[in-house]
Amino acid sequence: MIDVALLGAGRIGRIHAGNLVRQPGVRLAAVSDVNAEAAAALAAEYGARVASADDVFADRSLAAVVIGSSTDTHADFIVRAAAAGKAIFCEKPVDLELVRARACADAVHKAGVTCMIGFQRRFDPTFAALKRRLDAGEIGDAEMLVVTSRDPGAPPVDYIRKSGGIFKDMLIHDFDIFRWILGDEAVSVHAYASCLTDAAIADAGDADSTLVTLRTQKGRLCVINTSRRAAYGYDQRFEVLGSRGMLQAGNHRPTEVVAAGGQSISSDLPEPFFLERYRVAYADEIAHFFAALRDRTTVRTTIDDGVAALALAEAAATSWREGRVVAL
Amino acid sequence: MIDVALLGAGRIGRIHAGNLVRQPGVRLAAVSDVNAEAAAALAAEYGARVASADDVFADRSLAAVVIGSSTDTHADFIVRAAAAGKAIFCEKPVDLELVRARACADAVHKAGVTCMIGFQRRFDPTFAALKRRLDAGEIGDAEMLVVTSRDPGAPPVDYIRKSGGIFKDMLIHDFDIFRWILGDEAVSVHAYASCLTDAAIADAGDADSTLVTLRTQKGRLCVINTSRRAAYGYDQRFEVLGSRGMLQAGNHRPTEVVAAGGQSISSDLPEPFFLERYRVAYADEIAHFFAALRDRTTVRTTIDDGVAALALAEAAATSWREGRVVAL
Amino acid sequence: MIDVALLGAGRIGRIHAGNLVRQPGVRLAAVSDVNAEAAAALAAEYGARVASADDVFADRSLAAVVIGSSTDTHADFIVRAAAAGKAIFCEKPVDLELVRARACADAVHKAGVTCMIGFQRRFDPTFAALKRRLDAGEIGDAEMLVVTSRDPGAPPVDYIRKSGGIFKDMLIHDFDIFRWILGDEAVSVHAYASCLTDAAIADAGDADSTLVTLRTQKGRLCVINTSRRAAYGYDQRFEVLGSRGMLQAGNHRPTEVVAAGGQSISSDLPEPFFLERYRVAYADEIAHFFAALRDRTTVRTTIDDGVAALALAEAAATSWREGRVVAL
Amino acid sequence: MIDVALLGAGRIGRIHAGNLVRQPGVRLAAVSDVNAEAAAALAAEYGARVASADDVFADRSLAAVVIGSSTDTHADFIVRAAAAGKAIFCEKPVDLELVRARACADAVHKAGVTCMIGFQRRFDPTFAALKRRLDAGEIGDAEMLVVTSRDPGAPPVDYIRKSGGIFKDMLIHDFDIFRWILGDEAVSVHAYASCLTDAAIADAGDADSTLVTLRTQKGRLCVINTSRRAAYGYDQRFEVLGSRGMLQAGNHRPTEVVAAGGQSISSDLPEPFFLERYRVAYADEIAHFFAALRDRTTVRTTIDDGVAALALAEAAATSWREGRVVAL
Repeated sequence: MIDVALLGAGRIGRIHAGNLVRQPGVRLAAVSDVNAEAAAALAAEYGARVASADDVFADRSLAAVVIGSSTDTHADFIVRAAAAGKAIFCEKPVDLELVRARACADAVHKAGVTCMIGFQRRFDPTFAALKRRLDAGEIGDAEMLVVTSRDPGAPPVDYIRKSGGIFKDMLIHDFDIFRWILGDEAVSVHAYASCLTDAAIADAGDADSTLVTLRTQKGRLCVINTSRRAAYGYDQRFEVLGSRGMLQAGNHRPTEVVAAGGQSISSDLPEPFFLERYRVAYADEIAHFFAALRDRTTVRTTIDDGVAALALAEAAATSWREGRVVAL
Repeated sequence: MIDVALLGAGRIGRIHAGNLVRQPGVRLAAVSDVNAEAAAALAAEYGARVASADDVFADRSLAAVVIGSSTDTHADFIVRAAAAGKAIFCEKPVDLELVRARACADAVHKAGVTCMIGFQRRFDPTFAALKRRLDAGEIGDAEMLVVTSRDPGAPPVDYIRKSGGIFKDMLIHDFDIFRWILGDEAVSVHAYASCLTDAAIADAGDADSTLVTLRTQKGRLCVINTSRRAAYGYDQRFEVLGSRGMLQAGNHRPTEVVAAGGQSISSDLPEPFFLERYRVAYADEIAHFFAALRDRTTVRTTIDDGVAALALAEAAATSWREGRVVAL
Repeated sequence: MIDVALLGAGRIGRIHAGNLVRQPGVRLAAVSDVNAEAAAALAAEYGARVASADDVFADRSLAAVVIGSSTDTHADFIVRAAAAGKAIFCEKPVDLELVRARACADAVHKAGVTCMIGFQRRFDPTFAALKRRLDAGEIGDAEMLVVTSRDPGAPPVDYIRKSGGIFKDMLIHDFDIFRWILGDEAVSVHAYASCLTDAAIADAGDADSTLVTLRTQKGRLCVINTSRRAAYGYDQRFEVLGSRGMLQAGNHRPTEVVAAGGQSISSDLPEPFFLERYRVAYADEIAHFFAALRDRTTVRTTIDDGVAALALAEAAATSWREGRVVAL
Repeated sequence: MIDVALLGAGRIGRIHAGNLVRQPGVRLAAVSDVNAEAAAALAAEYGARVASADDVFADRSLAAVVIGSSTDTHADFIVRAAAAGKAIFCEKPVDLELVRARACADAVHKAGVTCMIGFQRRFDPTFAALKRRLDAGEIGDAEMLVVTSRDPGAPPVDYIRKSGGIFKDMLIHDFDIFRWILGDEAVSVHAYASCLTDAAIADAGDADSTLVTLRTQKGRLCVINTSRRAAYGYDQRFEVLGSRGMLQAGNHRPTEVVAAGGQSISSDLPEPFFLERYRVAYADEIAHFFAALRDRTTVRTTIDDGVAALALAEAAATSWREGRVVAL
């Protein structure tokens, strides 16, 4: 039995809690949150105890921590958990500063602990199936990747101000998709960005619409287009052009009802947002993490992946701010 | 807390067990099966006790039974559970003989217990959404219903021999869809059937392909086309033509990957069979049953629905065997 | 050069005229219509002369006639054209009476002239491609055919009164599809029909919604569902279930625009009616007719096909009126 | 009656000839080509005379010229036709050199003649319908445009060498789509390009895969992704994200057959190449040109559009070669 502490009892923490208690041989032993009430409620629901972060890191019976607390705590928790020899599952991003993220990676490597970053999209059934088929050679060599990643609406400007900017907050997932799908590294990145949906976002120094292009070591091309506001919902698609064909990953819909009325043939909008679209992915990434601990295998999304995606986000932000191509 | 006994620890019983233990205020207290090993394994998994059927019906602490045992036991278990004042969830069909099914319904009504028949398709997210939109008047008055219901492959001939025939074994679900979607009753039915996939099915006195047409009290028309063998998987669709448009319920796919190769654009086959396609439906029907018990509301699929679908199946079988239209 | 007379200068006549003048080696020499003005206008447009029907049949320089006049003239024109040794292209139906249609077929066979009936759907690119793939064995042996054939709206009741009824007027095309696609003949037919869209149609002794089922010599099954009124347009689909898969023929859309709005994802309605949907088919059937004359090959839709479809229409009408299965 | 001379009797010239003879009040009077045989054959087919280019420009009875000759002749023919006061329809591009193209535009403006450039994609039924719906405000303000434009295979390297490079040869159409759809002008452009399909293309100094991003005066974003080789056919799509939704223009398919086999559900590949995909567009642009002459209205794609698209192509090529963002 692996006893686990959950750091962070908010929305994503609750999801991880619900998923981890279903893993064979895994027990949610402790819940920690600066919001004592949230911690207590979640702990009660699953028969766990409430603990401070200090308690968690000091308790040798806890073999793993799941970090779902606010972004500014991630780096500290990772370093402390690594020092305590605990396996780590941490929500993205590792940190908003590349320097600190790299320090976390160093700490993890030095301690030799398992550390998985929550890039849940790699576990989406559609995305994962596409990756398997690509790797199996179905469309030959990958040449181009077109990623569409649009949110149904922007978060509050207060959130945006602390978010690290759209490239680190929103595109970090897409940079991970880019690296994962192509299995190649960028040598050059360029970004255009605009603020088209809400002037308050520009006032906060951020953009809401971006076009990022990348060129890889092997000369492959990738474009990521994002928007903070797609009126039709959460739009998460990508397509890979290969030498022998194309693979496309489409949106998931709540139902397969099609209506033919007097004006058009219509089907469902995509699943509304990430909690719905990636419901299976959240469950599968937690299962993967604990299976890796059990079977002593490597996790699919390491802290190095977290650092690499952050590096791309910083480069893209630089390209946008300075109006130039950035070499990597 | 409602203590429940599960009668039948086979494939469908295990699914019901997994779903019912997740319901708030519900406990799987006892498991019964003629296969003692299966009962013991399932009971152990959920901390329940093994019990004989006699024990179950005698135990006043058990408020409800979930019947997932073989078809020939359903009628007896329903009658005994009703006599014992227990709420009943029973897999379809009620029985293979209309006379016995009616006797069960009488017993249930007399006892005044809740009895729900497992027509899980009504709980499929796609089918249920279509029904809600139809009832909301989106396409005006329903005029015609076209049901496509095809299995990926026939069961063993030994099973077919005891199944009651394709109309009672397979189309019973489609007859329930017909009654539910149109909210109307058949006045006349006609059936063609053939054996096209395996001569052994004909030798067993059954057919593997059917076309059943029905005319309702209000003059609406319905056709059900079925096959025991669709090489491309489990095909579960229907469409309703209304005065102002059409609603179609399509198949669910495992993923939304689309591949463009040298010959065609291709997407996933439907979910392979009923356990996958109706996974959510099985969970939702059990949730509905226990919510109805908790809230003292009426269940959506009563024993009368079970009897009515069986009556249609018998009429269709008669039409086929006697080569004539059957009035109802 | 083949000189052709067009009998009938109405809507369908104009379409045939526009298509036939584009055939190599074919000249529209004469146009005949009881409406002298229509004949004159169409003749002028293509540099043809106006002629009476008597003139047409007497003129030995005219090698072929294209009959697009009203249904009640078809039989007489076919018999006279056959007697005069002219090749014949005639719009469906041959006649509304099976006896007269058979007499026409006898006259054609006796004269040994080419006679093609305008079942243009066989020339629809989608339908024709499906047939080729079916014949090539792509889905193995055909087992079941599901035909959906719905008009966007009913014609005036005055037209319906003289139309011969929905089975002869509308389903005759679908009976031809049935025979063509399955390459098999019906041994038994059953029809349900209702009047659901306009009581005036019932007053005229006709129905507007039908479900016709057929069983063939080889035990295959077919269902044809039709309606005089589909609010979303002209719905012309069919699907064939075979031993190794399924082939579906879908509707054509005017454009491939997809819109994602706040409520749904929507695409175009089907092409609005037969003139748009079957535009290519009308051109291709005329090309086929004149190519057959030129190359002395057999036409794809003979007068025997016209008679056979009419026989099915009569049987279905009988089934409906008498409430019974009709053997063929 | 407008008498027209066709300059260029090759593949595209033949298509224009077939379309222009169908226009009311338009006559193909003369055909000119350096290949005398091709000119003679085409002239004979439509009852036109063969003429030299000098004859064409000297003949005052010719009110218009349609230029479908090789690219290096366009500028000269435009200037001479303008000087002779003739209306001009010219295939894209105006010229491979921006300076010469601008001189052509000056000549046209000075002469005051109608000059239309053959950006046929604006006349594609799907693209044109999308544009109408966008202009009607269906999705609010346009924010982002994603253009996918892939050929089924590269032309011979000899052609590529003289083509002006992929940006002028292939993307010129896409730059026109960008300007037309967004109704806005680029202020900045960036291009990545690679040679991934055939090293001989790189040896010829060109690329076969590109990602071009643009930012407009209003801050809108556009990305164009192209490849010389899509194994699945001719891929011509785009999508516009607006403040209230998204409009997508998809590929056209030869048929609407869908096949469900043992491995997948599959539909047709797109129309194979531009002659098939844009067949209706070619007909409609010629109709538009002559309707504009007849009605004295403005053409939709002027020589200024031709110059503007060329300017973007040059800027993109510069961006690629110099590895930097180019301001416009």
